[in-house]
Amino acid sequence: MIRSISDALVTLTPDRAELPLRSGFHYHEPVTGLIEWMPVMVNGSRATIKVVGYHPENPRRYELPTILGTVSSYDTRTGHLVGLADGTFLTALRTGAASGVATAAMATADTKTLGIIGCGAQAVAQLHAVSRVRKIARVLTYDLDPATTASFPARIEVLGLDDLTVEVADCERVVRESDVLCTATSVDVGGGPVFPDTETKPWLHINAAGSDFEGKFEIPKAMLKRAYVCPDILLQAISQGECQQLTKDDIGVELPVLIGDRELCESLMPKLTVFDSTGSALEDHVALELMLGYGREFGLGAEIEIESFSHDAKNPYEFVFEDRGVAAVENLGRP
Amino acid sequence: MIRSISDALVTLTPDRAELPLRSGFHYHEPVTGLIEWMPVMVNGSRATIKVVGYHPENPRRYELPTILGTVSSYDTRTGHLVGLADGTFLTALRTGAASGVATAAMATADTKTLGIIGCGAQAVAQLHAVSRVRKIARVLTYDLDPATTASFPARIEVLGLDDLTVEVADCERVVRESDVLCTATSVDVGGGPVFPDTETKPWLHINAAGSDFEGKFEIPKAMLKRAYVCPDILLQAISQGECQQLTKDDIGVELPVLIGDRELCESLMPKLTVFDSTGSALEDHVALELMLGYGREFGLGAEIEIESFSHDAKNPYEFVFEDRGVAAVENLGRP
Repeated sequence: MIRSISDALVTLTPDRAELPLRSGFHYHEPVTGLIEWMPVMVNGSRATIKVVGYHPENPRRYELPTILGTVSSYDTRTGHLVGLADGTFLTALRTGAASGVATAAMATADTKTLGIIGCGAQAVAQLHAVSRVRKIARVLTYDLDPATTASFPARIEVLGLDDLTVEVADCERVVRESDVLCTATSVDVGGGPVFPDTETKPWLHINAAGSDFEGKFEIPKAMLKRAYVCPDILLQAISQGECQQLTKDDIGVELPVLIGDRELCESLMPKLTVFDSTGSALEDHVALELMLGYGREFGLGAEIEIESFSHDAKNPYEFVFEDRGVAAVENLGRP
Repeated sequence: MIRSISDALVTLTPDRAELPLRSGFHYHEPVTGLIEWMPVMVNGSRATIKVVGYHPENPRRYELPTILGTVSSYDTRTGHLVGLADGTFLTALRTGAASGVATAAMATADTKTLGIIGCGAQAVAQLHAVSRVRKIARVLTYDLDPATTASFPARIEVLGLDDLTVEVADCERVVRESDVLCTATSVDVGGGPVFPDTETKPWLHINAAGSDFEGKFEIPKAMLKRAYVCPDILLQAISQGECQQLTKDDIGVELPVLIGDRELCESLMPKLTVFDSTGSALEDHVALELMLGYGREFGLGAEIEIESFSHDAKNPYEFVFEDRGVAAVENLGRP
């Protein structure tokens, strides 16, 4: 997925794909939450739309992830729904993978220590992706909730990182000793930054994965100002990401431009860099295409027929007369 | 559905529901088409998003309806996908039902003759709905394609309108003799109007259901200017409906306001009126809620589990270790 997202970012330039800014419903009743739609179309091919919910009270109230969502693929020839996948796992994976792309582009090659601030679900995906592009020997973890850092080692067993040391550390030490730092918190609007400004390794690369909402950010402004800040999508990062704290002159090129510029990447590796990851529908598109491909390859998933169109396209009620009209209704069970 | 849409339009005022303007992808490769998303949220309850494709070459190329789509419902408490339904049939029904609401509000009570210009799938739904709010004795049909008018009587048998005469007529006669006229064409951008300006019954009510795209309209401008024009959604009608041909001063109140004003409705019944129906996500919302309700009541549809969240919300890979983690993957078949 890291490679596929990297390829897509470089090849799917604005003349080859449309990527409108996401939009959504924000509300405070019945709970604080947001439901957003994130559309993207690869010209002449498919459109992917993720509908994603962000409900910070989900874990406490319902034992559900903060992020729930569904990703759908549509054929631009006909409008057919091609496929539908859970968006929770897919979002976790692609958000990690995007940090993998940014880390490969900006982190020093001999990165050994990864710091993680906010050790929930996304922290696992961040370590997963970063460990695929840099050889990580040590992870320093910090979370407001000690139970979350405590359970982290068990949750990353699946990643198969055998020579890895995982340590719980105080927040400032995590920042000071890291070569790469991932922030993946659910900090409240107005509650950031999530760590104090402090001395860092000169080559520290930060993947700021948590800020995705107006007023929500994780990195201290002074540190951001010292860093080269690469947003995934500039306009989105300015309104919802770390870039909220910056003016346009302080902000570097977008990730797709950056990874296409090998020289720029080399020049940034010894420097303080930040990937301002607000999330892109293009990442979702790539992730869904991979999932659908693997689904076919390994016989996973299920075919569902929900379209009720008639054999005679001009007769919307054909199925009332003829059973053959609507495979969907039959397959999904008549009483 | 007519009653439910009418109730929803009156009760779901802007303080009780959010109805952003629809947006979408318009393209000419691989074929001319558009894929739009139409979101609506009933505050504190559910959000409905329809993703709808409009591909005029579908019938000729693929024997598919011009309109294909999928409608999804999301729980605003958690972001859960609540349900998913085909959007083709649902769109056909709700577009008819909206004309039913408008006809009940603006057509003269002793309407007998319904004219239909454009006798495809939507014409069936228009007759269906209009026949539920007015006693229709005669239908005058016109379509550019004689085969379409020829097949119309067979396609409306299901509606159970026993005392109904259906006649094929020339376009102008359809307009002149109708008490209510429904236009439901796939006229090309720039190809309208679909009938000439002519004398009409003074009380003619027109449901203009076909125009839903920039540059696409069905009614002659001079006739529109003589009429009271009621848009479903003003801003949308101005950019995509008959109202494209008008300035704001020429346009009446929106349908939700109109049907809440009994006196205004009475005053309009003897007059020339036009319902400029561009389509509302609120109509889709009502239609989906009804479908989901009937699905439960009659045991139709199927439960699908696609969410892959873990028991431990902080462990996105739990299912790698434990089968119980992901009901979805099991239900959809492991290799």
